[in-house]
Amino acid sequence: MSQLLFVNASQVVTCAGPARARRGIEMTDAGVRFGVAIAVEGDRIAAVAHPSELESTFAGAEVIDCGGRVVTPGLVDSHTHAIFGRARYEEQEMRASGVGYLEIARRGGGIHASVADLRSRSEGELFDLALPRILRLASYGSTTIEIKSGYGLSVEDELKSLRVIARLQRAAPLRLVPTWLGAHEIPLEFRESEARRSEYVSLLVHDLLPIVARERLASFADVFCEPGVFTIDETRAILDASRSAGLGLKLHADELEPHGGAELAVELGAVSADHLGAVSRTGIVALAGGATVATLLPGTMLFLGRRAQAPAREMIEAGAAVALATDFNPGTSPTFNFPLILTLGVSQLRMNVAEAIVAATVNGAAALGLAAGVGRIESGCSADLALWDAEDIREIPYWYGDRRCIGTWMGGRACHAC
Amino acid sequence: MSQLLFVNASQVVTCAGPARARRGIEMTDAGVRFGVAIAVEGDRIAAVAHPSELESTFAGAEVIDCGGRVVTPGLVDSHTHAIFGRARYEEQEMRASGVGYLEIARRGGGIHASVADLRSRSEGELFDLALPRILRLASYGSTTIEIKSGYGLSVEDELKSLRVIARLQRAAPLRLVPTWLGAHEIPLEFRESEARRSEYVSLLVHDLLPIVARERLASFADVFCEPGVFTIDETRAILDASRSAGLGLKLHADELEPHGGAELAVELGAVSADHLGAVSRTGIVALAGGATVATLLPGTMLFLGRRAQAPAREMIEAGAAVALATDFNPGTSPTFNFPLILTLGVSQLRMNVAEAIVAATVNGAAALGLAAGVGRIESGCSADLALWDAEDIREIPYWYGDRRCIGTWMGGRACHAC
Repeated sequence: MSQLLFVNASQVVTCAGPARARRGIEMTDAGVRFGVAIAVEGDRIAAVAHPSELESTFAGAEVIDCGGRVVTPGLVDSHTHAIFGRARYEEQEMRASGVGYLEIARRGGGIHASVADLRSRSEGELFDLALPRILRLASYGSTTIEIKSGYGLSVEDELKSLRVIARLQRAAPLRLVPTWLGAHEIPLEFRESEARRSEYVSLLVHDLLPIVARERLASFADVFCEPGVFTIDETRAILDASRSAGLGLKLHADELEPHGGAELAVELGAVSADHLGAVSRTGIVALAGGATVATLLPGTMLFLGRRAQAPAREMIEAGAAVALATDFNPGTSPTFNFPLILTLGVSQLRMNVAEAIVAATVNGAAALGLAAGVGRIESGCSADLALWDAEDIREIPYWYGDRRCIGTWMGGRACHAC
Repeated sequence: MSQLLFVNASQVVTCAGPARARRGIEMTDAGVRFGVAIAVEGDRIAAVAHPSELESTFAGAEVIDCGGRVVTPGLVDSHTHAIFGRARYEEQEMRASGVGYLEIARRGGGIHASVADLRSRSEGELFDLALPRILRLASYGSTTIEIKSGYGLSVEDELKSLRVIARLQRAAPLRLVPTWLGAHEIPLEFRESEARRSEYVSLLVHDLLPIVARERLASFADVFCEPGVFTIDETRAILDASRSAGLGLKLHADELEPHGGAELAVELGAVSADHLGAVSRTGIVALAGGATVATLLPGTMLFLGRRAQAPAREMIEAGAAVALATDFNPGTSPTFNFPLILTLGVSQLRMNVAEAIVAATVNGAAALGLAAGVGRIESGCSADLALWDAEDIREIPYWYGDRRCIGTWMGGRACHAC
């Protein structure tokens, strides 16, 4: 089996602190170790120890000199919408000048513009657009990336989107986790009446879900549960059916209004409730008492020009497990730069650096049901590593907006996007 | 004379709209041209015209194929503090957790930490630290960068800082504009009494300024005019003397409290008043009626976790010329990413994209007294260009946090930082 030995790191940020059932580790401890080397065997981390302890066992290993720099687990970006066609760059200044969501839609923008655009493209075309975007995301330090469908909103176009993800899994040296988000929005052709609206929910549950499950096209189902999008009852129906079909559950919850989304996520045993900009105190208590990770997306709030952010401190202090993610998408978060999201975690969400790093590694993995073997630098875990042009972990959020990742490895294999 | 011909640009963003005395151009018009080529002769732009009009005159030119991408003027970053020693990455999470400025200083942080650090380093050491930082800034699209002293705060250490800038000017293929900011803060050894405080102002005016002027070490003098730092009267004294010594004037004004800084800047004929987070209505009216550029630094507010931002819209609508800059410094804005500042200009300051681009080019040049020949793609201007991995100008602020600059030229010479 091939062996690698990472030596001469200034800090190895293990994210392997005291275990905490189903929710990664205590967030205030990023498990920083000094003077240790990392031994990799095949696709797994074999040991993290003083180099002298590893020298004989790994005498034949390929040595990677970290040059006095920081090594972290490869970042885990647990929330992206990376399968889309055209960039929607014309909306940003409209929004800034006060043009509302409905008016942007009337001028041909908004999510329905992405739906029309995606429907017009072939699977191959979407693959060709997505692959460089995924590699660009990876170049900022991610080795695991969740990708949602959700701009198809028809049987054919949702399946097309999920098949693009399957092709990306074969093409990119990354761990890509597919999520089916057929319930991203009610498509235009189902909006003329309540009856038509129900037909769309029925299409999702009865026509689309069985194929997604049978062809194993997704690990998770997700629903945009928000007033004006999917109601609590519709969300429950879609997610109950998805769970029965063998999918894990995720939820877009309480982004703009408190709506009971976080509580529902915990009740249904979802791996994550995402956004939470307007989560209620009851929702926070539910998250703190459950196994659902609270996934926060501060870049989206920044890009939208909103002053409010999710109450991260309150959640952490209540005992909830918090993850951070990019929310990479063409409308509200067109960023590849996950470390910038960590900056926002500190400057906007008032997290400390350890909390932000844990949120972007092991807690991101927990938000994908992968915390047992991903997101930590610990014996037995997948050898997913990121090397940073930094001497100290705190430089990662500090040099805001810069790309300081200079190498990543996923399952022991170098990813050459950096 | 060497000739270059830039062809096949999707858009040439000239920033050369209708001229407006001493303040660049109308901000809402970035002068985007389609289907034109740019001819460069020596260090100047010779023509911007349809390729067929340029073919014969520039038949021998080296052709640069822009590949259907956007060309803008090289960005002009008119406010940085790039001469410093150690990065102060430990302060970000302290600040996020509510530790105040004074307590951070007590723990060895804050500006006085940078002063002690800079004083301990040689000119050569500071040069070696600064050069890669300047090239990193350039890699995001800047071809003109203002650099302030201000972490020396003694005759010897301020001169050392300015001499580092002079060495950088010789070493980097960029236009670097040196500003003397001896009045960045009252150094610790001059703080025990009002009398000592006056002695520091006297040292600046009588001991340091004459040397700075005689050795031509700075184009501008700048003062941090803010309650608790330099008063209006002290600022006036220092800037009056600086003007008499032949320096142009800049001002850190009204960052945290309205203090009359903007009004003073206009009264003294300063090229710029910078920060302006708390500028008063009177200050805005003064800026709108004067020749002083309002330089806004939204990245600083973001990094500090402040919710307020300078009232950019009010300033623009009143008729003030607004510039954007990085404020690159180790305490409050450690970013190399000028395009991210443009994103914040749109999402946080509600500027439109044309306003943000104008603010980062010709208006940045105006904030350095250079608008006559820099910051525009127009015949006779310096051939300072940036090529972007974008088909449309709006992509520059849209892909937030990404580095999309793929080439820059300063005075017709390629800068290889990108």
